[in-house]
Amino acid sequence: MEPAVMHSALVIGTGLMGTSAALALRARGVDVHLRDVDPGVVRTAQALGAGTARPPMEPVDLAIVAVPPPLVGRVLADAQAEGVARHYTDVASVKAEPQHEAIALGCDTSRYIGGHPMAGASRSGPLTARADLFEGRTWALTPTADTDTETLNTALELVALCGAVPVVMEAAAHDRAVALVSHAPHVVASLVAMRLRDAGERAVSLAGPGLRDLTRIAEADARLWLDILSANAGAVADLLEELGDDLDRAVEGLRSIATTDEAKRRSGTETVGSMLRNGQLGRERISGKHGVQPERFETVTVAIGDQPGELARLFKDVDRAGVNVEDLRIEHASGRPAGILHISVAAGRATSLSTALQDQGWRRR
Amino acid sequence: MEPAVMHSALVIGTGLMGTSAALALRARGVDVHLRDVDPGVVRTAQALGAGTARPPMEPVDLAIVAVPPPLVGRVLADAQAEGVARHYTDVASVKAEPQHEAIALGCDTSRYIGGHPMAGASRSGPLTARADLFEGRTWALTPTADTDTETLNTALELVALCGAVPVVMEAAAHDRAVALVSHAPHVVASLVAMRLRDAGERAVSLAGPGLRDLTRIAEADARLWLDILSANAGAVADLLEELGDDLDRAVEGLRSIATTDEAKRRSGTETVGSMLRNGQLGRERISGKHGVQPERFETVTVAIGDQPGELARLFKDVDRAGVNVEDLRIEHASGRPAGILHISVAAGRATSLSTALQDQGWRRR
Repeated sequence: MEPAVMHSALVIGTGLMGTSAALALRARGVDVHLRDVDPGVVRTAQALGAGTARPPMEPVDLAIVAVPPPLVGRVLADAQAEGVARHYTDVASVKAEPQHEAIALGCDTSRYIGGHPMAGASRSGPLTARADLFEGRTWALTPTADTDTETLNTALELVALCGAVPVVMEAAAHDRAVALVSHAPHVVASLVAMRLRDAGERAVSLAGPGLRDLTRIAEADARLWLDILSANAGAVADLLEELGDDLDRAVEGLRSIATTDEAKRRSGTETVGSMLRNGQLGRERISGKHGVQPERFETVTVAIGDQPGELARLFKDVDRAGVNVEDLRIEHASGRPAGILHISVAAGRATSLSTALQDQGWRRR
Repeated sequence: MEPAVMHSALVIGTGLMGTSAALALRARGVDVHLRDVDPGVVRTAQALGAGTARPPMEPVDLAIVAVPPPLVGRVLADAQAEGVARHYTDVASVKAEPQHEAIALGCDTSRYIGGHPMAGASRSGPLTARADLFEGRTWALTPTADTDTETLNTALELVALCGAVPVVMEAAAHDRAVALVSHAPHVVASLVAMRLRDAGERAVSLAGPGLRDLTRIAEADARLWLDILSANAGAVADLLEELGDDLDRAVEGLRSIATTDEAKRRSGTETVGSMLRNGQLGRERISGKHGVQPERFETVTVAIGDQPGELARLFKDVDRAGVNVEDLRIEHASGRPAGILHISVAAGRATSLSTALQDQGWRRR
């Protein structure tokens, strides 16, 4: 059997996700047909160069159903009845309910595999679409009990053409995972943002980038997110309940800190402190700084003297060397020199940085 | 009386905040003296060009106490006893407790004004300091009952020299405000991040930029934040309790959506939907996109035809015109053309964009 090569695709629903996938496929030479219930939206996608609004003359290799979660089952069933494609996938952010509906509506589940690219934007519609929207992103694929290997391979090809990284998992496991990493956090961001609605002008003026980052996802299309949360309501509610228990413990810890009872204060400090440290540990798992390949850094050490501004001059010389600094740490000796600076750089860049600094008269240590 | 001009300052505590203020003052020609209980840290700040570790020979204009919240009162009292400066301020993130302590320790509160620049970083220490850390940021100033006008003016000068925007408010009002916009959100970010600590590898792989943004502040120094939260524990606990009530309502709404009872589903949908919409409204107040000067945009309208890729070509021409696009909206006519594209640009840029597009053959509408 020769390897599958996708020649043609039909995108059903040309919003942000569908149009972005269409643009990525077009860029790799796939014939893309576009369909949407809203003729204006499909004309916009066509005008963006995402493909043609003409219906395909024969079944395409892959139909990509890019409609809101509650409509996936119905649209898939209709498309299969029409026989518009050899293989079918979707890009909805929940996977168990669409799969149940597809089964209930008598779809050919051997020709269908669920899909969910972990990308999006706070705005919706084809105008926000980008060919590189999925680049480097995880794309979950959720086979049914009888998904054909060729259907899986066609979906894997779609993921590869979009530059994304596939992860195959069960629909239910997927939904629990996105409740954890996306849906429950979305609700939390909305609740924090909601508290700002009626806050005083002065208080709001104190908001900094941390709060802006935290609440950014609360900007997203409320109607779209109501659909997403509704389709995964049970799993999201479970997680928010657990979070509520943690929140109760945090409140209790803070109340203890606010008392004058020394033993209570100590126990409250322990509670809140351990929560902050565990938060750091959880955060490290997604910070992109740790875990993946920590061994890919090298360190250059430089002795720093006592002259005012000496570090400032060193940083200028590092800048001029054109080497990206990944991390900095200073070690103070007890004698005269201000200390030893440890400069972490990407593997392979240490030698050139070291040479450049020695040329400028810096002493290695 | 001639306007006050700051000639000299003493920074007590050369961590991130103190060293950044010192760098900003040095850049504006102020003589800066540096002091820290850790001699290595003060040598690092000096090596960064933040000032001199030599003690001042005579009282400086302003002493900036940049130590953790629980130490502010004590350090201020000692510095005043030493008579090291004419005016005193601090940069701690809570204001009521340091003020109470200053009073309890018998400080000269007429020569002291609390301060809190709304800036920081997830890492601490002088190596992360930057002269522009406070640029464009809000800097709260909290006078005591008898703060001298000259002390206020000296602090205002510090804020101006750092490029920040001053807001004068009462210490208690400040602490409630930062509980709302900073401290309670920090706890929430930590709790969300904490849930990731023991999550499965596959689930974590689905995390996207939204969750990374939401939990970014949970990276911050846990010890530092334990101090901050402890000093404002009551106000933070109050806010987290309100948030807990909202969370309970969200869980209830989601549970209703997950039932088969149509009336319950409708009411749950209403609850969750209104929460998402109110979250958007709250978020708008800090998004930086709305509110401040919405009238400073102008719109260029262009008619889009039916050719595949027409919008893609238009976007290239907009790019070439070198005009930044603030917003895009498409309006679909019912006739032949794909629609009318509305391009929002900064005031004063519309004419040049319009001309450039007409030169490329685009029709204005």
